[in-house]
Amino acid sequence: MARRLFKELERSYGFDEVAIVPGDVTINPEMTSTKMTIGECSFDAPMLASAMDGTVSPRFAVLMHEMGGLGVLNGEGLYSRYDDPYAILEEITSMPQAEVTQYLQQVYSEPVREELVGRRVDEIKQAGSVCAVSFTPQNTKRMSPVAVEAGADIVVVQSTVTTARHQSHSYRGLVFAELLESLQVPVIVGNCVSYNVALELMETGVDGILVGVGPGAACTTREVTGVGVPQVSATLECAAARADYFHRTGRYVSVITDGGIRTGGDLCKAIASGADGVMMATPFAQAEEAPGRGYNWGMANAHAELPRGTRIKVGIKGSLKQIMHGPTSVTNGTQNLVGALQVAMGMCGAPTIRDFHHADMVIAPSIKTEGKYFQLAE
Amino acid sequence: MARRLFKELERSYGFDEVAIVPGDVTINPEMTSTKMTIGECSFDAPMLASAMDGTVSPRFAVLMHEMGGLGVLNGEGLYSRYDDPYAILEEITSMPQAEVTQYLQQVYSEPVREELVGRRVDEIKQAGSVCAVSFTPQNTKRMSPVAVEAGADIVVVQSTVTTARHQSHSYRGLVFAELLESLQVPVIVGNCVSYNVALELMETGVDGILVGVGPGAACTTREVTGVGVPQVSATLECAAARADYFHRTGRYVSVITDGGIRTGGDLCKAIASGADGVMMATPFAQAEEAPGRGYNWGMANAHAELPRGTRIKVGIKGSLKQIMHGPTSVTNGTQNLVGALQVAMGMCGAPTIRDFHHADMVIAPSIKTEGKYFQLAE
Amino acid sequence: MARRLFKELERSYGFDEVAIVPGDVTINPEMTSTKMTIGECSFDAPMLASAMDGTVSPRFAVLMHEMGGLGVLNGEGLYSRYDDPYAILEEITSMPQAEVTQYLQQVYSEPVREELVGRRVDEIKQAGSVCAVSFTPQNTKRMSPVAVEAGADIVVVQSTVTTARHQSHSYRGLVFAELLESLQVPVIVGNCVSYNVALELMETGVDGILVGVGPGAACTTREVTGVGVPQVSATLECAAARADYFHRTGRYVSVITDGGIRTGGDLCKAIASGADGVMMATPFAQAEEAPGRGYNWGMANAHAELPRGTRIKVGIKGSLKQIMHGPTSVTNGTQNLVGALQVAMGMCGAPTIRDFHHADMVIAPSIKTEGKYFQLAE
Amino acid sequence: MARRLFKELERSYGFDEVAIVPGDVTINPEMTSTKMTIGECSFDAPMLASAMDGTVSPRFAVLMHEMGGLGVLNGEGLYSRYDDPYAILEEITSMPQAEVTQYLQQVYSEPVREELVGRRVDEIKQAGSVCAVSFTPQNTKRMSPVAVEAGADIVVVQSTVTTARHQSHSYRGLVFAELLESLQVPVIVGNCVSYNVALELMETGVDGILVGVGPGAACTTREVTGVGVPQVSATLECAAARADYFHRTGRYVSVITDGGIRTGGDLCKAIASGADGVMMATPFAQAEEAPGRGYNWGMANAHAELPRGTRIKVGIKGSLKQIMHGPTSVTNGTQNLVGALQVAMGMCGAPTIRDFHHADMVIAPSIKTEGKYFQLAE
Repeated sequence: MARRLFKELERSYGFDEVAIVPGDVTINPEMTSTKMTIGECSFDAPMLASAMDGTVSPRFAVLMHEMGGLGVLNGEGLYSRYDDPYAILEEITSMPQAEVTQYLQQVYSEPVREELVGRRVDEIKQAGSVCAVSFTPQNTKRMSPVAVEAGADIVVVQSTVTTARHQSHSYRGLVFAELLESLQVPVIVGNCVSYNVALELMETGVDGILVGVGPGAACTTREVTGVGVPQVSATLECAAARADYFHRTGRYVSVITDGGIRTGGDLCKAIASGADGVMMATPFAQAEEAPGRGYNWGMANAHAELPRGTRIKVGIKGSLKQIMHGPTSVTNGTQNLVGALQVAMGMCGAPTIRDFHHADMVIAPSIKTEGKYFQLAE
Repeated sequence: MARRLFKELERSYGFDEVAIVPGDVTINPEMTSTKMTIGECSFDAPMLASAMDGTVSPRFAVLMHEMGGLGVLNGEGLYSRYDDPYAILEEITSMPQAEVTQYLQQVYSEPVREELVGRRVDEIKQAGSVCAVSFTPQNTKRMSPVAVEAGADIVVVQSTVTTARHQSHSYRGLVFAELLESLQVPVIVGNCVSYNVALELMETGVDGILVGVGPGAACTTREVTGVGVPQVSATLECAAARADYFHRTGRYVSVITDGGIRTGGDLCKAIASGADGVMMATPFAQAEEAPGRGYNWGMANAHAELPRGTRIKVGIKGSLKQIMHGPTSVTNGTQNLVGALQVAMGMCGAPTIRDFHHADMVIAPSIKTEGKYFQLAE
Repeated sequence: MARRLFKELERSYGFDEVAIVPGDVTINPEMTSTKMTIGECSFDAPMLASAMDGTVSPRFAVLMHEMGGLGVLNGEGLYSRYDDPYAILEEITSMPQAEVTQYLQQVYSEPVREELVGRRVDEIKQAGSVCAVSFTPQNTKRMSPVAVEAGADIVVVQSTVTTARHQSHSYRGLVFAELLESLQVPVIVGNCVSYNVALELMETGVDGILVGVGPGAACTTREVTGVGVPQVSATLECAAARADYFHRTGRYVSVITDGGIRTGGDLCKAIASGADGVMMATPFAQAEEAPGRGYNWGMANAHAELPRGTRIKVGIKGSLKQIMHGPTSVTNGTQNLVGALQVAMGMCGAPTIRDFHHADMVIAPSIKTEGKYFQLAE
Repeated sequence: MARRLFKELERSYGFDEVAIVPGDVTINPEMTSTKMTIGECSFDAPMLASAMDGTVSPRFAVLMHEMGGLGVLNGEGLYSRYDDPYAILEEITSMPQAEVTQYLQQVYSEPVREELVGRRVDEIKQAGSVCAVSFTPQNTKRMSPVAVEAGADIVVVQSTVTTARHQSHSYRGLVFAELLESLQVPVIVGNCVSYNVALELMETGVDGILVGVGPGAACTTREVTGVGVPQVSATLECAAARADYFHRTGRYVSVITDGGIRTGGDLCKAIASGADGVMMATPFAQAEEAPGRGYNWGMANAHAELPRGTRIKVGIKGSLKQIMHGPTSVTNGTQNLVGALQVAMGMCGAPTIRDFHHADMVIAPSIKTEGKYFQLAE
């Protein structure tokens, strides 16, 4: 008996459920280019460090630039609320887990100060780096001109779920077309996960979209609210929107998969699914130069009434150079991420990121080696 | 070779296997209304506390009313069998696990007394609360008039599996149409899980149906008998029946998903699947005001010959106010359930529950973060 | 790109992956009949105890008869090899796990003695019980007349995989039609798992078939050889063969699902999949009257060159009466199996086993309650 | 709403997700032949030991020959780099896990010496064995003639991913047609996983292809790069290519599934999926005669910049004879692999490997016995 349902559900997939198929042709890894562009800006490594206070400080943003990537500073984080954010960081990272959510709720209730935003941008620009700053939609109209005036090269507008048509009683919804006209720098907007929303955001004129709701390590949005889409499916949808939009307009909008990427394998799968680059927190927060000193946490964690997410211990695993470019003796895919991407592109015969978008993929649940027949030596 | 089978099986889904997709439009959470109606009664929070003795006492039912929800008193529980049920509760909650099923089998063999049913209803009504009482189909005809006469506003007729056409040698099957005519208060009936049964129950004139066989935390019906349907699929079927019935008759019957809901995420998924409200035990039994003081158990547990279910330790997690409305510092989705629902509705641009029924959903097995690359701090 | 494959594979299902859907009508459990027939023999409880030496001794076969079921004696087991098999049983059940396979290989190399087969049948018949004895296909022609002459009522011909057309150099394949003509008692044959083989076996004239390759607790056939089919799919196929054969010939052949059944839920699912009865080892080996005293093992375990399976500790859980008929205070579905079946049949409105064959089923992976939000009390 | 995706993904399957269905006819295991041919060479056991230094030494290759299989010597391993490789093996197998990757990176940076390749081939040939040596594509043109001149019977050209059309700046891609003409011995090439690549490789004239990217126990290619295809699907694709190529040309190219095979069950599934033989590391590395003395590791593990894989402790489980031919008292499918294959072929009525290719298979996730109802005895 066919069962009658109120609505139909389609299957979606995450990183652990897919694999990339080698190509009909292979090329040497050194023949591949991993270049990513956002508006006029170009990056050798297609990687953004997440706008989280345990991941990106002004100093870390400079280091990301030197490594070929882009560190996004949280424009509403501790760096924009405190003259000396490092004392707060010290507290957060040394506090027992049971008390930390309450402490985060408290310290993030301190207001954001415009002059501090300008000061942090200046610190990054003085070092000769590309500077990207993120704001929530509510504060973008007020804060982003401050950042751009201080020299910011890219503005990121980010909330858990962002659409081109948000409705609110308390503030007039952000109109992205107006924002873009006023700022005159590339704007990245997110997060979204579906074809329709990605397409509508692209039509406002933005230069990049962030893809991902619910997948991150420091995020419990899906557990708390049930809302979330696995990253491979989300990226495949948003990349379809980019392809259709490009076909119609000739303008190429970058798709950046944000959240849930822990290894080179995840990174490669995101890009093979159609992403132009990825935004990551954990791998960068694990760098010895990261401000969180082995810990990371998200803004949603500090929500006064409904905190989502938690401070996680990511550990310190190596230098940012090792993590991004190697060399390394770590074999679990968490180091030399650029090298891993190049090896995968070589196996698929893809000289560029856009060629790699056409790699074949299969649904293939991850292999769980259970130590039944062998084990790692002690 | 195509394999020839005796019958075909369709795939069904539970909460852990699906996720809600954000909408094309988003709205601020404070713009959403979570109102649920059952017959003429209206509730700000679409939540019923299960008719289990460890969850709902007369006093707890009053508190549920104050919080905007509805606590259903078990009309055949300890409160209707003992003048002083609290001494029995004390015993149940302090007994070793190995002995508790036998003890439950014993204390629930004491007969239900009609005057105690009336007294408990009166306790709830004296406090100014809406009062709902549940009975099994066998006892409904005899007991429910007692409850209504004492002032009960809603009658719940509940057994593991209920249909409009039960056959028995020992008693004449309950005819819901007759019951409804005699009682003149809203009646909720359950549990059911399929389109056909939901439709037949609606056609008897009931005001709400309970959806769910086999999923609850304190229930082992599926393990013992193999019978049970995962809640997302069950809700999708019963909501389809409600939609078809409404289309044909113009009368709207509430669908209440009962069992297996542990977090805000589960709650949101039940409602996005088509439920108008949910019935829950564990989250309410975890309130410091709950009579089970950190424990819960079901009636089926006390079955003399084939006990199903077991006393579980749910723990005491916070006040009922925190659990339903927050604020909270707990980030795993078990507190501020109304807030979580509003955030989810906002992400899907749904101002009302009925709008939220149209949210898109995907099949997406739950993310298991295995602590491989990071861990919660100590 | 559609991938080109050497052959297509269909999905198959086991007990843990399906659930039974309640019916449109329900009936009281006491209105159900669980009667099973095999040839002319009729049994109140549709359950056979497996022909394993730790499960069925002559005395246990008598007890099974008293409980309404059928215990099958292994005609080539210890009881047919030793005058005093109980001393060997004592050794097997008190030996360290590391040494037991070698010991089993040794004690099962002792030859089967015809006069012992007759003596064991006589022990069972003297007690007034129906007597069933099993042999492997190689020995059936020689041994089964001995058993029938001594009074056996049913002969079971069993090997890991049995077809109507086995080829061998060392002995002439057993021709079932000839066997049936010579024995003049009902014959049950197995094991098989597919439509074709089930149909061919039925066409030889046998009265029952055993369904199941690879699923049992004490069996590692699938791990060692890769061969095996999950029980729900296997039963669905063989039941389709029975239905087609019955439609064509009017003769009803019993389908008995053998292996992998541990709970009332599994038993109910086997029968809802089309089985007329089940053969089980673990639940019966857990009876305090079972000869294995809390242990069980299979014949394949004793194979001299390629042992498959292993001695498992099943524990002693209660009397056979409790396990089959209750009452019980155990809530995990391992006791009162007949009661569980009647409750399930009631929920599906099925007065007989053949009605229960038409219950609706869904694919529904088993619920894993992970103790995340609550736990069993200490 | 049907979701629009950038590309479609098909489901693929690994060993743990499938099972073999018994045939309509069965035959006695001793009536089966497990013979495999590669070019003109014929082997009684369809098994190659992987070209890994912990698995195959010259002495182990001789032993494999005596057992009916083929041990492939790594032509670029320690045996071709050091006069006394055994001292290095001693170091590798006694080193803490934390230091071993760095040590492997160091010892494998020593250059390969042509005269040592010749000396190792000579050691094998002197013992009267068939000799197979493997090289990477970069070194094949230079090194393989040395091996053949010293007497090698088969050349294996192997890298993680091999196609007929590799592009490189640093060296001219290996042209297999030229290689085959110059060597005049059978050539096996790999690894590949797709129909197209398998077909193109066959068209160059090679005698065998190795199937498998990412599945091995000592390999983390899929974790590091996301690239890999489960072995059952990979074998089904490559076997389809072989069938089509054979249909068109009349030339039969052997398909050898390489990686991820741990038990007799896996081996049987690979062959039932269309493989003519398998290449394995772990089962052979577990032999007491293996050079790794209970450890194994891959070449990719020694990559200077992006090591993939890790040294694993496989343990010492028995003699090579027991592992390949038994007899055994081990019941988990890791010993008597040839016997297990013959039993499986018997159950499917398949007298030869090519008959076994036509066995029916189903998708059937592996049974996880969780010790809930019983446990292995102590």
